[in-house]
Amino acid sequence: MANFYTDNEDLLFYMRDGVDWASLVEITEYGFRTAEGYKDVKEALASYHEIAEMVGDLIGNELAPRAAKIDAEHPSVKDGEVVEGRAMRDIFKKMREAELHRLCLPRELGGLNAPLMVYFLCGEMIARADVSSMTHFSFHGGMGLAMLAFSIHEGTTRFDTKQAQIAQTRFEKEIEEIASGKAWGCMDITEPDAGSDMAKLRARAEQDAEGNWYITGQKIFITSGHGKYHFVIARTEPAAREEDTFAGLKGLSMFLVKAYEDLPGGKRERYVTIERVEEKLGHNGSVTAALSFERTPAALIGKRGEGFRYMLTLMNNARVGVGFESIGLMEAAYRMACAYAEERHSMGKAIGRHEMIADYLDEMKTDLQAIRALCVTAAYHEEMSQKLRLLERFGEEMSESERQRVRKDQPRHQRMARRLTPLLKYIAAEKAVDHARRAVQIHGGVGYTREYGAEKLLRDAMVLPIYEGTSQIQSLMAMKDTLTGILQHPREFVTRQAKARLQSISAEDTLVRRVAKIQVLSLSAQQHLMTRTIFAKLKQLPEKPFSAWFETLSKDWDPKRDFAMAMLHAERLTRILTDEAICEVLLEQSQKHTQRRALLSAWLDRAETRCRGLYDEIVSLGEDHLARLQGQDREAQ
Amino acid sequence: MANFYTDNEDLLFYMRDGVDWASLVEITEYGFRTAEGYKDVKEALASYHEIAEMVGDLIGNELAPRAAKIDAEHPSVKDGEVVEGRAMRDIFKKMREAELHRLCLPRELGGLNAPLMVYFLCGEMIARADVSSMTHFSFHGGMGLAMLAFSIHEGTTRFDTKQAQIAQTRFEKEIEEIASGKAWGCMDITEPDAGSDMAKLRARAEQDAEGNWYITGQKIFITSGHGKYHFVIARTEPAAREEDTFAGLKGLSMFLVKAYEDLPGGKRERYVTIERVEEKLGHNGSVTAALSFERTPAALIGKRGEGFRYMLTLMNNARVGVGFESIGLMEAAYRMACAYAEERHSMGKAIGRHEMIADYLDEMKTDLQAIRALCVTAAYHEEMSQKLRLLERFGEEMSESERQRVRKDQPRHQRMARRLTPLLKYIAAEKAVDHARRAVQIHGGVGYTREYGAEKLLRDAMVLPIYEGTSQIQSLMAMKDTLTGILQHPREFVTRQAKARLQSISAEDTLVRRVAKIQVLSLSAQQHLMTRTIFAKLKQLPEKPFSAWFETLSKDWDPKRDFAMAMLHAERLTRILTDEAICEVLLEQSQKHTQRRALLSAWLDRAETRCRGLYDEIVSLGEDHLARLQGQDREAQ
Repeated sequence: MANFYTDNEDLLFYMRDGVDWASLVEITEYGFRTAEGYKDVKEALASYHEIAEMVGDLIGNELAPRAAKIDAEHPSVKDGEVVEGRAMRDIFKKMREAELHRLCLPRELGGLNAPLMVYFLCGEMIARADVSSMTHFSFHGGMGLAMLAFSIHEGTTRFDTKQAQIAQTRFEKEIEEIASGKAWGCMDITEPDAGSDMAKLRARAEQDAEGNWYITGQKIFITSGHGKYHFVIARTEPAAREEDTFAGLKGLSMFLVKAYEDLPGGKRERYVTIERVEEKLGHNGSVTAALSFERTPAALIGKRGEGFRYMLTLMNNARVGVGFESIGLMEAAYRMACAYAEERHSMGKAIGRHEMIADYLDEMKTDLQAIRALCVTAAYHEEMSQKLRLLERFGEEMSESERQRVRKDQPRHQRMARRLTPLLKYIAAEKAVDHARRAVQIHGGVGYTREYGAEKLLRDAMVLPIYEGTSQIQSLMAMKDTLTGILQHPREFVTRQAKARLQSISAEDTLVRRVAKIQVLSLSAQQHLMTRTIFAKLKQLPEKPFSAWFETLSKDWDPKRDFAMAMLHAERLTRILTDEAICEVLLEQSQKHTQRRALLSAWLDRAETRCRGLYDEIVSLGEDHLARLQGQDREAQ
Repeated sequence: MANFYTDNEDLLFYMRDGVDWASLVEITEYGFRTAEGYKDVKEALASYHEIAEMVGDLIGNELAPRAAKIDAEHPSVKDGEVVEGRAMRDIFKKMREAELHRLCLPRELGGLNAPLMVYFLCGEMIARADVSSMTHFSFHGGMGLAMLAFSIHEGTTRFDTKQAQIAQTRFEKEIEEIASGKAWGCMDITEPDAGSDMAKLRARAEQDAEGNWYITGQKIFITSGHGKYHFVIARTEPAAREEDTFAGLKGLSMFLVKAYEDLPGGKRERYVTIERVEEKLGHNGSVTAALSFERTPAALIGKRGEGFRYMLTLMNNARVGVGFESIGLMEAAYRMACAYAEERHSMGKAIGRHEMIADYLDEMKTDLQAIRALCVTAAYHEEMSQKLRLLERFGEEMSESERQRVRKDQPRHQRMARRLTPLLKYIAAEKAVDHARRAVQIHGGVGYTREYGAEKLLRDAMVLPIYEGTSQIQSLMAMKDTLTGILQHPREFVTRQAKARLQSISAEDTLVRRVAKIQVLSLSAQQHLMTRTIFAKLKQLPEKPFSAWFETLSKDWDPKRDFAMAMLHAERLTRILTDEAICEVLLEQSQKHTQRRALLSAWLDRAETRCRGLYDEIVSLGEDHLARLQGQDREAQ
């Protein structure tokens, strides 16, 4: 009997003491205020462990054996409704029966009130068995939580501050429907001509004389788009100018749309039309639908024009979720590759004992564990940031220490989550593809056939660097946040550089010195790009009157024009930033748990040469290179 | 109307003057000795150009539009025979009608007597449309040529030296059957437990009292294994010891097996059973069969125990062929990515104008052209090497200059072909996968669907680093050849180092200096690995009596034990060796054609940082790393 939890030492480490559970449990349990809640951290942890063990068993023994079948049974559209494969229906029935969709919902809404961290760690196990099942799963409980979050955000949830619980919330009925597994939700954002560029969204929402909203337009690539509850982004105000991105974003509003209603007698009335489901490379358990809206009734969430902001509140969680999906897939790839490398013999020994293959496997294992550390850390900060902000709902009942934490800790957690999220989304998704490809290669000829399942991992993995913001978008975000941060706090940047330089020479612990050297490389790369960027800006000054110089340097920044060099190197910079962040995360772990020093050391072995190489590329591929690319640009025009 | 030849500037360059056609045509046309042959190089080239234009038209307009269909129509087995899809049958009918299977066969055997170079360049076009069609195509004319080569090799082909043509050859009937397109052949090597490790092959051949041979055993992963003529490697002498690789290879012999005979009345008698065709990730036009032999009649080729040697004579050509398959696929990926990057707009401009995507596309284009240069150069040397050796068939009729060339030039061409072949197989296959993956990523969401065909490229590409010797096998071969070469000619190595150092500082041409710097890095990496290897060996000396020291150092080399560090870094070394080889090839082109300097410069831009990084990895990931991998090894045991 396979148990995807108990067979995984690294997961056990996190569930035991690899996470600061004390803070997470306390805040999740409202400072242990409620009568029905756990009485302390220990009791909560024991319960989470039980949940994880149950999930590990269900996934290892029920989902994993169905994965190939889920992959083979493509969903299709029949009579306007999506028909999922049998294996998919079976496993979701089992998940429903195990109450998995209630995992993180508050108790007063029928949930188990587990931290999101538990959800993510369980999600990793689901993804290890079949990543497309994990994706679909996340549109169940996850959408219930989104409804609650939106309602709190817009002020339609009332708290009973004495009992430390929700007294009333706008979508209570819908949340229960989702928690029970009868329905699920989805997010309708992408349109045929607007993917990453949301300012170009064109689906529109109009209000009739009574104030009722109706949506008309097309949405594509909607994951789990055959669900009942759709959060839909639609345009309520026209863009001032076509090309004005910001105006484009300000005109978007968020709506909740019920896609259908089941009528008595087994009939269904549809308000949203499913045009088709995509035929994809893989990820076949997850339905990707194209939808059309034709004056479909919709309920406005929050205020007009706040759509983009509402979407942002979900985005970080969704990206952290992709991180855990990616780790699950990497875990599967690593185990599959190891098993085959043990089984297959060549030139007198198992191929896993050949130096080159041993090196591949070692790198896969190190990557997997290091990226898991990054994901867990980001998930922790994201959850703490969100939950600390919610503490305010207690109003008068807040203790002074809680008030302090909201003021002091919340912004710190938020900054960390914001910093780590694009990095983890980037690296986890990219590495999932690399590892899947390697698993195929280690299998040789049989890897290219359906037999061992390695090729399925690659097909499934390929979506990870695309959805929830491509790797390129993550890179641009990480680069812009980093460089803008330096512009805003130049002194802090210099201090960090000085500290890293000092540490890299004088720290007692060799691991601290090695991590500091990575930081020095990262900061040098940042400084190089910043210098180039400012230098490019300075070159514009002579064209302007002297009186405008200060204005130009301090305010008039146009990323499109001024950040060309940084944009060119955004992905390389992101790779260094990721190496640096992982080093810091693993160093923190090592300082608490000495057994983690081996992982940090193994990670550093490869990160050191990698970062030196990336730094070299950033400083070497410079103006000439950029001019050449821009020359091609002009030629092409 | 698409023409895959005339729309490709780089192909036109090679067909015009990017290849030393004078030498190639002269030798292919037997020094213009024959009455039916071309009278000079110019006439021959005009004819090759016509052929290429015809092929470009056929492939662009007939094959390319069928590629998606070929991919969708998986071949299957019905009543013991393989049923190919309709699109595949249609296009091969058209190829047959265009006499493409006769391309390189000698005129006296009904062929067009084109150089293999023309075949390879045409093959690239086929692969650009659909790589699996190219693979299957190569088992037609290619197998006819193999029959001729084997017959010449074993001495059953008689030459008319006066007329400079073949008077008689053992497989004339079979060759004509193949040339006419009625049949094709395949190579049956791999077995369930023996892929790269040929010493483990177990299919056996036995002789009856009359001296007739019969083969019994299993063969798997046989490309185009539904063909009529099979070259089969089978064991005729038992291996002395199971683990004795060399004894294992010496016991192998080469056979020609007729898999079936078509009887009058449309019936077919089968001698080789098709057990199944593999369900693969892609490459669906190419049948991959599992076969079984049960006392199947077979004809011995050459002598008993020469099987491995016969196989080797084909291997280089096959690997060069995979190089051209890979380039074709890269050409498709690049064009598809460019077209989409022009069409798709985001943030106010075509995504191809965004720096990061422009950089991807620029790298794809540079890789593609540089790797094509490597493949063309290797193909040239391989063909010259083979054909110069065949000059000897003229015996007394050979001119003195021809005799000189056989003596002097042939070994040089052979050395070059041997050096470049594993490098091109490695890099072309790996880059084909990278580029296909990039094409998917540039397409974003639609890249993950069937719509644009990007995902098909990735599925097709994934077989390239696996078949005809995995990337890992190529790396090991390149590493062993390189280090053994240093051991054998240490003085030459030192001279090369000195020359590269000098050139890197003092050459007048900046491109020469830059190429020399890459050579210095490559030679330094080689020296490092050689030093480590000898150092490891020296450490063994104290365990042995002094009298055995000389013996140990000069002879007693066991790659498994002594080359551990070099094996660990074989792939990294191969990447540097490839960069070095490509630089040299492009430098030679630049010196003849100044318009090629831009390509060399673009290649160097990226190769410089890459090689510095690889060198850094080779010297940094040293004994500790190896000890850790070997420690895991011991743990696992």
